[in-house]
Amino acid sequence: MPPPLPPDAKCTRCRSQATIRLPNHHMNFCPDCFTHFFQTAVHRAMKKYGISRATPLLVAVSGGKDSLALWNVLNQLGHVTRGLHISLGIDDFSEASTAAVDRFAQERSLPWTQYSLKEIFGYDLMEIKRRSRRRICSLCGLLKRQMLNRLTIKEGFQVLVTGHNLDDEAGRLLGNLVYHRSEHLRKQSPFLPTPHGKMPIRFKPLYRLDAQEVRNYCSLQGIHSLEAACPLSRGATSHIFQEALNLLEREMPGTKRQLLYGYLERHPASPSTIPFVPCTICGEPTYEDTCSVCNLRRHLEKNSAKE
Amino acid sequence: MPPPLPPDAKCTRCRSQATIRLPNHHMNFCPDCFTHFFQTAVHRAMKKYGISRATPLLVAVSGGKDSLALWNVLNQLGHVTRGLHISLGIDDFSEASTAAVDRFAQERSLPWTQYSLKEIFGYDLMEIKRRSRRRICSLCGLLKRQMLNRLTIKEGFQVLVTGHNLDDEAGRLLGNLVYHRSEHLRKQSPFLPTPHGKMPIRFKPLYRLDAQEVRNYCSLQGIHSLEAACPLSRGATSHIFQEALNLLEREMPGTKRQLLYGYLERHPASPSTIPFVPCTICGEPTYEDTCSVCNLRRHLEKNSAKE
Repeated sequence: MPPPLPPDAKCTRCRSQATIRLPNHHMNFCPDCFTHFFQTAVHRAMKKYGISRATPLLVAVSGGKDSLALWNVLNQLGHVTRGLHISLGIDDFSEASTAAVDRFAQERSLPWTQYSLKEIFGYDLMEIKRRSRRRICSLCGLLKRQMLNRLTIKEGFQVLVTGHNLDDEAGRLLGNLVYHRSEHLRKQSPFLPTPHGKMPIRFKPLYRLDAQEVRNYCSLQGIHSLEAACPLSRGATSHIFQEALNLLEREMPGTKRQLLYGYLERHPASPSTIPFVPCTICGEPTYEDTCSVCNLRRHLEKNSAKE
Repeated sequence: MPPPLPPDAKCTRCRSQATIRLPNHHMNFCPDCFTHFFQTAVHRAMKKYGISRATPLLVAVSGGKDSLALWNVLNQLGHVTRGLHISLGIDDFSEASTAAVDRFAQERSLPWTQYSLKEIFGYDLMEIKRRSRRRICSLCGLLKRQMLNRLTIKEGFQVLVTGHNLDDEAGRLLGNLVYHRSEHLRKQSPFLPTPHGKMPIRFKPLYRLDAQEVRNYCSLQGIHSLEAACPLSRGATSHIFQEALNLLEREMPGTKRQLLYGYLERHPASPSTIPFVPCTICGEPTYEDTCSVCNLRRHLEKNSAKE
């Protein structure tokens, strides 16, 4: 948390009473000007990657602060959106996630579609955890990525937007640099164009806003997001890299942005040139004979005896 | 600090009572086998970069744990060495540094030469700090690097060895990656060959040993190094990057080594191909008209009025 503002602090933009401090930008804002700042950051991101208001956007919404803030700001900016929520089946946590999405959408009369992982994949996340020793955060990430891609096409959209913020993106980059993951580094971009019609464009419009800025925005906009962290994600390596970046940021404000923006400038994303083939089991596009989703399902089926 | 060893822990090498735990290597050692492990790590580094016992080595010694450990282990391994100490003029700290070198060398009858920064550059570090607003750690680094190079040639040696350990090298790499310092990244190697006869080969034989391993070695070898940290270095960015790496290492043991070794494998050092010219003031090799040492001296001379 940044230190509190002195009582006479002025808004950098309009000179009225400031209530929000952004130490990494050397700016203070009143509520209205902070909202303007937040909207402008998203608008610029959309413009930079050529996403206009004419393009309908499917918004992946988990019920957490980032995805609801994203959905909200896109509607404020006049984009046509539909929410897409996958209920993962992590007991009470997933029920509360779905409830947060439902409340948000009802309050704003926004359309959304809900799927459950059990229904589209065959197993929910608690079952997957029981049946596999592989790291659950990595399996969950794989499934969400693949299922969101497929459902975007199924729902008739070409662009999927997700709520990844600056902390997510910079933390992921740090991990990829530290472990020299060149395949992941090639995809380190807020905008991934589609390699063919069976995959959507993926875009992360919040990549210039950090977690604290998203929190401030949610609080000003009356967004009641789910505050609890996923009970399965304790000790996830992505959290640890974000923690290391927060340590650097506290001592050297601006480090996160310098890391991410500097990298993006120097390394434009280069999507794989390996040709896609249809998965021999499900027909979805894949680089191998069978896709990662079918491979995982087979792995889980084999391990059914463990239950 | 690693957690204490259980009382019945066995040495990984000889199965006697272990007293030293190396969690990042999944090994425990008795004192003798730890010394063997430490010597082997240095011996392998020497071999890998082709430094044989026939090559006399000038050892840069500050009086801290790393440089005294290095000098000690090189002598244990049968290398011919001479110590080179530059007294920086940081009040009591520098006096204690010189005293630590003197005591170490006397106890082991090792030859060494002492210079003072005041005598070779014209200003000691406290004067430099008073006369310049530039970051003192960065100026000190520049001067030590340049002066050690020049004194190595003056003393008739071709190879300068310094006590940089794994933490120093991995922390420096992390900082260079985060800030995209491509010129520094090109020189990220424990071994920098000489570009011409007026510059020595620079080598860091401890780059595979972390700070805690060096501390253990010093304690076993009865090395009384200066334990105090430099009073001018509080908040140095190099410390902050090392702290961030320690955070990652605690949660994911082995991260430091993966970062450094993985980088070195993928990016062999490529010394600059820009030709050197003699400095128009002092005649030392430089890329520009005047060398960085002469530039700094002129900067300090201009600021004399501030005193």
